[in-house]
Formats: sequence, C-alpha cells, structure tokens
Amino acid sequence: MNAGSGRTMMEAPLLVSALIDHAARWHGATEVVSVETAGGKDHSTWAEIAANSRRLASALGRRGIGQGDRCGTIAWNNRRHLELYFGLSGGGFVCHTINPRLHPDQMAFIINHSGDRMLFVDRTFLTAVAALVPRIPGVEAIVLMGPRDPEAETILPGLLFHDDLVAEGFADYAWPVLDEAAPSSLCYTSGTTGDPKGVLYTHRSTVLHALGGNQPDGLAVAARDSVMPVVPMFHVNAWGVPYISAATGCRLVLPGPGLDGESLVRLIDTEGVSLALGVPTIWLGLLAALERTGSRAESLKRTVVGGAALPPAMIPRFRDEYGVDLIHAWGMTETSPLGTLNQLLHRHVALPPPVQEEIRRAQGRPPFGVDLRIVDDEGRILPHDGHAQGTLQIRGHWIVAAYFEAGGGALTTDGWFDTGDIATISPDGYMTIRDRAKDMVKSGGEWISTVEIENIAIAHPAIANAAAIAARHPKWDERPVLIAVKRPGEEVTEAELLTFYQGRVAGWQVPDRVIFIDSLPLGGTGKVLKNRLRDQFGEVLMGQTDR
Amino acid sequence: MNAGSGRTMMEAPLLVSALIDHAARWHGATEVVSVETAGGKDHSTWAEIAANSRRLASALGRRGIGQGDRCGTIAWNNRRHLELYFGLSGGGFVCHTINPRLHPDQMAFIINHSGDRMLFVDRTFLTAVAALVPRIPGVEAIVLMGPRDPEAETILPGLLFHDDLVAEGFADYAWPVLDEAAPSSLCYTSGTTGDPKGVLYTHRSTVLHALGGNQPDGLAVAARDSVMPVVPMFHVNAWGVPYISAATGCRLVLPGPGLDGESLVRLIDTEGVSLALGVPTIWLGLLAALERTGSRAESLKRTVVGGAALPPAMIPRFRDEYGVDLIHAWGMTETSPLGTLNQLLHRHVALPPPVQEEIRRAQGRPPFGVDLRIVDDEGRILPHDGHAQGTLQIRGHWIVAAYFEAGGGALTTDGWFDTGDIATISPDGYMTIRDRAKDMVKSGGEWISTVEIENIAIAHPAIANAAAIAARHPKWDERPVLIAVKRPGEEVTEAELLTFYQGRVAGWQVPDRVIFIDSLPLGGTGKVLKNRLRDQFGEVLMGQTDR
Repeated sequence: MNAGSGRTMMEAPLLVSALIDHAARWHGATEVVSVETAGGKDHSTWAEIAANSRRLASALGRRGIGQGDRCGTIAWNNRRHLELYFGLSGGGFVCHTINPRLHPDQMAFIINHSGDRMLFVDRTFLTAVAALVPRIPGVEAIVLMGPRDPEAETILPGLLFHDDLVAEGFADYAWPVLDEAAPSSLCYTSGTTGDPKGVLYTHRSTVLHALGGNQPDGLAVAARDSVMPVVPMFHVNAWGVPYISAATGCRLVLPGPGLDGESLVRLIDTEGVSLALGVPTIWLGLLAALERTGSRAESLKRTVVGGAALPPAMIPRFRDEYGVDLIHAWGMTETSPLGTLNQLLHRHVALPPPVQEEIRRAQGRPPFGVDLRIVDDEGRILPHDGHAQGTLQIRGHWIVAAYFEAGGGALTTDGWFDTGDIATISPDGYMTIRDRAKDMVKSGGEWISTVEIENIAIAHPAIANAAAIAARHPKWDERPVLIAVKRPGEEVTEAELLTFYQGRVAGWQVPDRVIFIDSLPLGGTGKVLKNRLRDQFGEVLMGQTDR
Repeated sequence: MNAGSGRTMMEAPLLVSALIDHAARWHGATEVVSVETAGGKDHSTWAEIAANSRRLASALGRRGIGQGDRCGTIAWNNRRHLELYFGLSGGGFVCHTINPRLHPDQMAFIINHSGDRMLFVDRTFLTAVAALVPRIPGVEAIVLMGPRDPEAETILPGLLFHDDLVAEGFADYAWPVLDEAAPSSLCYTSGTTGDPKGVLYTHRSTVLHALGGNQPDGLAVAARDSVMPVVPMFHVNAWGVPYISAATGCRLVLPGPGLDGESLVRLIDTEGVSLALGVPTIWLGLLAALERTGSRAESLKRTVVGGAALPPAMIPRFRDEYGVDLIHAWGMTETSPLGTLNQLLHRHVALPPPVQEEIRRAQGRPPFGVDLRIVDDEGRILPHDGHAQGTLQIRGHWIVAAYFEAGGGALTTDGWFDTGDIATISPDGYMTIRDRAKDMVKSGGEWISTVEIENIAIAHPAIANAAAIAARHPKWDERPVLIAVKRPGEEVTEAELLTFYQGRVAGWQVPDRVIFIDSLPLGGTGKVLKNRLRDQFGEVLMGQTDR
C-alpha cells in the first residue's frame, strides 16, 4: 500500500498475487482437493498453494524467465495448474492456458504466436507435445506437471519436472509490485474459421472481473462453499473461479481428467460440493449419471451453466428432482468471460414459478462493470423490448480491446466489442442470445434460430441432446435440419419429433429433417462442433425441390 | 472505455458516476422509496434518481462549483440525499456528509475546515443551520432539500431549493471523465477528544469498497433484495449502501427521520424489506417494537449490525424468534467503513448451532481488499491464536492514508492504519474487538474489557441496555462500574445483577457497582457516549478505600 504523494486513501495496484496472499493469510488451512492425472486425490491447502506458487515464481525468475514472458500450460484442472495460475501471474510472467484438444496445427500456431518460453504439461499430453517439439522451436523447456519421472524422461529427453522447480524456488520469495495494467494471462479463442486469436488479460482486468463477477447476482462464491469448476482451466481461466476462490477462501475441488457423469457425481458426494460450474453437455451427463446411480447430490445447491445454449428443461429438472438452483450465464474468451448472469429482480420474487423460470432461461443481466447494447446492421442502437434482434456488443473493465499481437484494435469505432451473437434484451434488462450470427439459418430471407429449435428437441423426453444446423436448400437457400441423440432405452421417430414442434414454433421454423446419430461431436470445451455437422449433413436437402 | 495506447483490455476509471449509470441503464424501473422529512412517502426509480443527479451536477457546475469543491449535506436518509450522493460525486465535486447531531461548535469547525461552498439541509435542521450562518462565512449558499418553501425563506433569506436546482439543470448533462484518484466524498470522525478529522474518499476507493464489500460474505446485496439502510447517510456513507444498491439494482428503502422501533417495523412490513443495516441500539428498539406490535417481520431475512459492540443475545433472538440472520460487521470512518464481516467458513457449516453462534459473535474476517494485523506496545506482530490481545492495524484499498488537510499521514512507518482498538484474531481468522483502547479499564495494572462486562449485563433478562466505564479508584487506580437500563416492567437489584456475573468472568473483573438510570446518552450515530457517563459517574468509587 502506498500512502505517499498526498493521497488521502491508500492505493495499491490490483494484482493477482494479492488474491493468493489473501487466501494464504485468511484461509490458509482451507482445503484444495485435486484429482490427479495419475489417479488418486491430492489434498492441499491455500497456504500450501501459495507457498508453492512463490517457489515456482522464484525458480522461473532464477532460470531467466522475464517480466511479461509467456509460459504455456496444457493441463487438466488440478493442484499444480492452480499453482501455475498464481505463480506465473504473481511473478509477473504470463500464464498462457492452451486447450489440449486442439488440432496439433492449431496448437503449434498458438505456441509459436504467443512466444511461449516454457510449456507445463500434464502426463496425459506428454506424447502429443513431444511430437510437436520440432515445430515449436521457441520453447526452451518443457516441464512435466508432477514429480520426477524417469519413464517420462525417455519420451522427452531434457524434460523438467514441476516438483523439482518448486523445490529449487524460495518460499520467502516476495511477489514483485507490478503495474496493474501488466499482463497476467493469455487465452486463445478456438474460432472455427481463421487463425486463433489471443486475449491478453491484465492484473487489473482479472481482479476487477473476480470482484465484479462474484457479486451475489454473479457466481456468488462464499467461504462456506465447496466449489467445483468442471469448466476447464484452459477455457477462459475456468470462468475466473480460481481467482474468485482465492479471494473468498472457499474450499476448492479440482476434478482432474475424469469429467464423465459418474466421476462427477462421486466427487460431488464425497467432497460435499455445493457449487459446480460447467457447460450444458457436462450437466446432461451428470443428470443421466444421477439417474443411473440413484445419488441425490445432497450437498449440491447451485450450478452455473454457460458456454453454450441452455436446454430449457434443465432448470426445472435440477430444481424439482435435486433441489439445485441452475444459474444461467453467458460470456466469451473476449469477455474474461462473465458478461451476463441470470438472477431475478425484486419485482420478480413474488411471481409464480413458471413465470420466474421463463425469465431465468435468458442469458441474464450484466453485472456492474460491464455494459451491453444491441445494434442493427447499420449500427443503430435497438430498444430493450424483448423483440428487436441485433448484434450484441459489450464494453467494460474486463472486455478485450485488442487481440494479442494481431495488429490493431478489435472494437467498433465508438469503443465496443462486437460479439458476433444475435440477441434481444427484455424491458427488465435480460439478454437472450438468439444465435451465433454464423449459426443462424436464413430461410427464404427470414432468420431461424437454431438454439430455439434445439431447445424444443431437448425438451422431448426421448431426446438426450440435439443440434440444429443450416442445410443448403435449392429453393429456400437454407433450411434447418435437426441432428438428434436419443436417450438410452428411449424411442422416437422422425415424424413424432417433428409433430412435437407443432404449436411450439411457426410452421416455417420446423426443421425439414431429423437425423438420429449416436453422439454429437464435441470440441475441447464441450461445445457441439456445428461446423463438423454442417460438413457431414449440410447437403442432405439438396435432392429436394420443394417442401 | 479507453482502448487506445496498445492496451489489450479496455480500461476506464472506476467512478461513482458509473454506479448510477449502471442502475439507470439496467434497473431504471426499480423503486427507491423514501420517507420524507415533511412526512409521507416518496416513490421514485433508479432512472429518476439518475436523471435528477445529472441535473443537480449540471446546475452546480453552471453556478460555479468547481472540480474537487466540497458541498455539505445535513440530512436524513432520503431521496434527495441520494441524488446528492451521485450528483455531487458524479459531477466531480465532493459530497461532504455532516452529522446533524453534532454540537454547533463542532459543526462550525467541520464546515469551515472542509471549505464547504454550499450546504444542503433538511427542513428539520434549517433553524439550527440558520443560527450557524454567521460562524461559517465560507458557505456561499444554503439549499433546502425540498420544493420552494416561502415559510422557510423567512427563516433564512436567500435560501435556495433543491427542486429548483434540479429543474434548472440539464438531464442530458454528461458526467465528466475524472481521474479515479479524484476525491468523491468526505466524512469527519466524531472523535470524543480533539478536533474532528476528515476522511476524503476517492472514486477508486469508493467503487472498490462497493465491489469488495458486497461479496457474498460481505453485505451480499442482490437485485432481489429490498434494502433499508437505517445507518445514517451522514455516517460513513451509510456503510456504502447507496453505492452498492446502485451497483446491484436492488430496491432501496430510505427511512427518513423516524428511526424508532415502531416506525421501522411498519416500514419493514409495508415495503417488504429483506435486509436492514444499523447499529445495535436500533435493533434493540426494533426487537422491543416487534414484541409490542406482534409483527413477525416476515420479509426480513438479514440484518447487518455494526458500529458498536453486539449484545450476544441478539443473534439467537433474531434467529429463533424472527428467522432473521444477523451479520456482525466492524469498521470505522477511516475504513470506508467495511473492515470485517462475520460469515462462516466451509469447515464450520456442519458444527452445532451454539458453536457456530460463538464464532459469529466476533467482528469477523476481512474481505479481499483489506488486511489486518494485531501488534503489541512495541509494534511486534502478534499471532492469530485467539488469545494474544494487541492494537488492531489495517490496510487496504479503502483505508485512509492521511486525514484531509491535517498535515502528514495517519499511518505507521510501514504503512498501516492504527485503529486504536484492542483485538484478538482467532486461528480461523476471526477478529474480535476486545475494547477501544481508551475504554479499557486498567485495574491494578490488569486490563478489563468493558465490552465483555456490558455483554453479560445485556444477556440478563431484566436489562435493556448497559454501559461499563472505568471509574477512578483510590487503590486500584481504575475499577469497572456498570450503568444499566432496566427493561420496562422488569425488576432487578444491584446485588442480583452482580451475582449474575459469578462464573461468567473472573472475580476481579466483576464491576464494583451497578447504577440504574432511565436511558443511556447516545451520540449522533447511536453509540453510547461513554465520555458523558465517565463525567457523571467516574468519581463514584472515590469514597471507598478498599474492596
């Protein structure tokens, strides 16, 4: 804290190191539970995480990593990854989290573009990274996230080990006092077209995101919570959960590599998880596993769901069968990611549950610190009437201004970031994503939302998951086609499912076809890879001449 | 938002104007209910508050009030006061809230020391302020917080009117983009010795206090809440509630001048108040009124209690009789004020209720953004063991660095603010104020906590309120004397009350005398004026030669 230069109030930079310092000083004995890549659970505390983070930062500094230098991580949600979050950012380096499920070409591109000097890698990914080594000449060292492992050394000679670095660092290392505008972490968008683009977060943006995103209408993490981020730590900093957890001193449960429904149910029950966060696909798996195992998930009070459109049936299912409050959220890599969260207003509290549920399906309201608007194709600002659909634009303390070394800003001329989503905003301020601009179906000049079509399908009792795509059509240019996965043991025909749409959407919005497949192709963050479905099924209507 | 100069993330100053802008944009239709000084309720909305704030700032700018100039308020918690909070700070002026219950000498000192150019005054205080006019020559205009009032003009010729200023300002006035280190508000400490000292808050400290103080373990205000700050807006910015309310878009209920128990019960019931905040004295009055009126205070879920020591019986009484969760908090004018709040940790959740209650009696843990330590007389840092008592020191983003125009800093050589409180910190990080250093009784060289003595008295069923003071003693130097107020219709003798102490404290800590009086003298913020009790009863033991 700096009291000098005539200030009447203390002033200190907003730094990531202050988050882990707070956890160590005030929640030092609180547990961090981590499912290890090698199997088994690791039990540590915030005090130990903080000490190891300092040691890591100290060791990297002594090995010549400089302020602002990037170091990459290719890892699951686990204790060592958490130490890297705080050790790298706290030490003034940049924690660059890499999605391990990317194609090797994309991974090489990202590592080279970011200028990563070191890579920290979980055992799962070592062989893949070893194969990549000739293509990433800038990387000076690869570190296995574990203890010394002679077998791993045979895969990659010269390999370093996380636990050795921790041992060679000093526990009394003092965090550098950085400018709060200094970079702290880096995450690339997994765009489906063009090269991936990096978002370089700053200490200030990260701390303000943690404070602004954890308000009671936000993630609402308290010290009494046992929090499990299922959302990967390589996906937009696990929505800020590691930082928020340190700031609040909650118990943290890191699920490691096993993200199937059964593994998650077991973790929830044994670790008393009260809040879990992830994408809808994860929760579909969890709900199915709860049904199979008969667990009641007693400890679980809340789930935060984002990253893809929420199947509407999920809210009542969690609430009525398990007493879990599902909180819908929206964001992007470019928005740190918390852009909106859905909680009721005071005037909604006395409304009947079905009306409340209708409101809570939307992506929600922006927290203080973020502002939204929707604009038409000419850039005119559209009203908050729940009907006008426009491109969603956003600005605020944790929103990207310019992609990392991409030349030039990412913003509109008046300083907003254009999300590429099509949205409406209700009179009460609730934003609803109608579709990704690129996923919308343009049928005879009219827009059809694939999200809406998918939501109806998922509400059908026999359907486990579904994706709608725009298929090329000789007359209408594009028409919707539904790709659906049945629930185990359930049967439904194409005709029955199409009948289910009657009265739920306008006739011209009903899909032209339903194609049943065994499972949907998922990307690294659990999102459905619609471009792959379009490649496979985009031409199925081209034999037709009319409908 | 500024995207320029190579920044990768947007950056904008943290400003008070952004809080009211957020409320207007996203919670414009949400109600602010205000009990008017003239009687009756005023219903407005966040959109109207925001528009009036802009108009006020515009009018003051046109009248020559400059950036950083102070304007004073002497007012209850009401709608116009809220407009001044945002209009003055938002416009780049300084909102200086003045405690109307101060002695005229102190009030004149504060107004002159602050350099207030204008004073905004509620009708209640107009006559007193008119009498003060000759002693405050720097004040250029006095504004009555209401519509034009010919009768009031006869009391103070040249009087201006709040509603006229609003009318003459422009609604499309654009808030200035200030440096976030610019001052936003000013509050003087009501010290019992020496001249009052001013704490000049900045925009940055105010916004960080709002974000850091409203975490789920903090005030935890959500948009679904109906919030009533009973703590005055002239007392450390009503603990930040006006700013936090705007940031969250909750419904706000401003209770005006009637702070007696019956008035508050009526407001809670008619306005569906879910969260109320105030000092313990207020809640003693409220509990008595609930009993008398038979109200169940159905809507009330939480009370935040701070500003003075909490009677331990209050937590179970609120919980068991009314289902209200009492949250204990601690702070000072110098700490904005939120320094600690008391919520449980994850490992406490499964403890039996009496053990939880014991933990929750402490003043609590610091939120992220604030750090505490206790030191002995030589400045050595003491352990967090729950036993070591030391002077409490604090630092953080919303802690004073130097009093306003007082010459020099207010801090220790290593940058901490010394609170003058004596405290312990438990191994779990819970801070307990043992006493104000100046209120401790030093009996034969041993310290006795007056807070502890008072808490025992208040736990007695026949006692409504009590204060312990250090009385001079010929042999022991000082000995504790209890000044107590009986509950209506209850009887207890001095001997009975002294017997009640047996087994609850060591024999030498039992007061030497109990003196019953009709009511305790309270200061402007509801705290017991112990210096007045010491003046009156400090010599009662001087006839004794031994005990």
